[in-house]
Amino acid sequence: MQYKLYYWPSIQGRGEFVRLALEDVGANYLDVARLPGKGFGIPALMRLMDARRVARAPFAPPFLQAGRHLIGQTANILLFLGARHGLAPRDAAGRLWTHQLQLTVADFVAEAHDTHHPVAAGLYYEDQKSEARRRAEDFRQSRMPKYLGYFESVLSRNTRGPYLMGARLTYADLSLFQLVVGLDYAFPQAMASAARHYKRVLKLSRAVQERPRIAAYLASDRRIAFNEEGIFRHYAELDAR
Amino acid sequence: MQYKLYYWPSIQGRGEFVRLALEDVGANYLDVARLPGKGFGIPALMRLMDARRVARAPFAPPFLQAGRHLIGQTANILLFLGARHGLAPRDAAGRLWTHQLQLTVADFVAEAHDTHHPVAAGLYYEDQKSEARRRAEDFRQSRMPKYLGYFESVLSRNTRGPYLMGARLTYADLSLFQLVVGLDYAFPQAMASAARHYKRVLKLSRAVQERPRIAAYLASDRRIAFNEEGIFRHYAELDAR
Repeated sequence: MQYKLYYWPSIQGRGEFVRLALEDVGANYLDVARLPGKGFGIPALMRLMDARRVARAPFAPPFLQAGRHLIGQTANILLFLGARHGLAPRDAAGRLWTHQLQLTVADFVAEAHDTHHPVAAGLYYEDQKSEARRRAEDFRQSRMPKYLGYFESVLSRNTRGPYLMGARLTYADLSLFQLVVGLDYAFPQAMASAARHYKRVLKLSRAVQERPRIAAYLASDRRIAFNEEGIFRHYAELDAR
Repeated sequence: MQYKLYYWPSIQGRGEFVRLALEDVGANYLDVARLPGKGFGIPALMRLMDARRVARAPFAPPFLQAGRHLIGQTANILLFLGARHGLAPRDAAGRLWTHQLQLTVADFVAEAHDTHHPVAAGLYYEDQKSEARRRAEDFRQSRMPKYLGYFESVLSRNTRGPYLMGARLTYADLSLFQLVVGLDYAFPQAMASAARHYKRVLKLSRAVQERPRIAAYLASDRRIAFNEEGIFRHYAELDAR
């Protein structure tokens, strides 16, 4: 089956967590809003968000079309792909644990976003710079250590492999990788000074990065570069050791 | 089976979404941190969050113990309870759609929280009042209409009953009810002036409120009152028509 992914064409954003899963399993998919022509581009994306006309319309991108199903919410799309492509354990308890870790990554990602948009997602960064400075400081000093320390602890219980579940990769590992490289981009100083505390998290990130399909994807033009329109933005004034 | 729910004892918070599901199905559960004695209270909760010692330790409350399984993240707990107690459709697509709606409620709840804590969850409201005023204004004027309008649109596609899925209640309905009463508490003026635009959402909320087990729960001392330590807080300066 050919999937259709709908997400903003110029940023990694939340869509990237889905792209990584699709790429890792070698899925056949179209990144609809990045393609030209009728039935593609941003208009195609907007059309499916019209909850008055579309059954089960999503609230926001990303969403994935799989046959006649339209699935929204990043973690929910991964729940679906995980079960379908072996990116989650087969047993019910293992699936719930994977999803729990994914939702914790999602919370962390939302907080990373709010460092540059603490007042309103609809306003420019320039209109909330002083608030952003306060929020970013708390994020670096309190939230990053709390979340990264949590994932480090989870990994410290595994001796069978580099991933959250041990030897076997799940979608939560792909997402944790994306989070780490995003933080490296947005907060290089804070991440450099924290690195020694999160060796297992960084090892997981490298293991994901070296997976053949992920490495090929990252080197391709399908991988959009980080930029200051996405979730992870580098503003020097928000970073510090 | 007797469930054990772990959540902060003095607030509704995110634990309330789980409590409502447990109450609606008439589950046998202990609200561990609210009980006295050895093995209960906040220390019992803290012990299970120690990721170095507990396999699959959660990042934060709420979490639910079901036999030997410990399940964290509100939406994930509801995913589990939904499948187990008929609070979600039986078909895979219906389950994903329910979960998608739940995750959208969760995003809305997180934004409601951040109206009074836009800088840092670890700081007092009093230390971020000016930022809170800006964020709350955007929340009332932009985010509330966007989210509530979305749920109204979803409901407008149903003619078979008051709930998101039509005649049959799911955990997403219980959560949307909690969101509506939370917003009514925190932003009574904004909600009063918006009411006419969200008739279906309010009808759903009343339908949930009138379910016998929910009505009994709300009238009991198991229902903690809204207060200014929880997610939904009433600060008059953050509300407006």
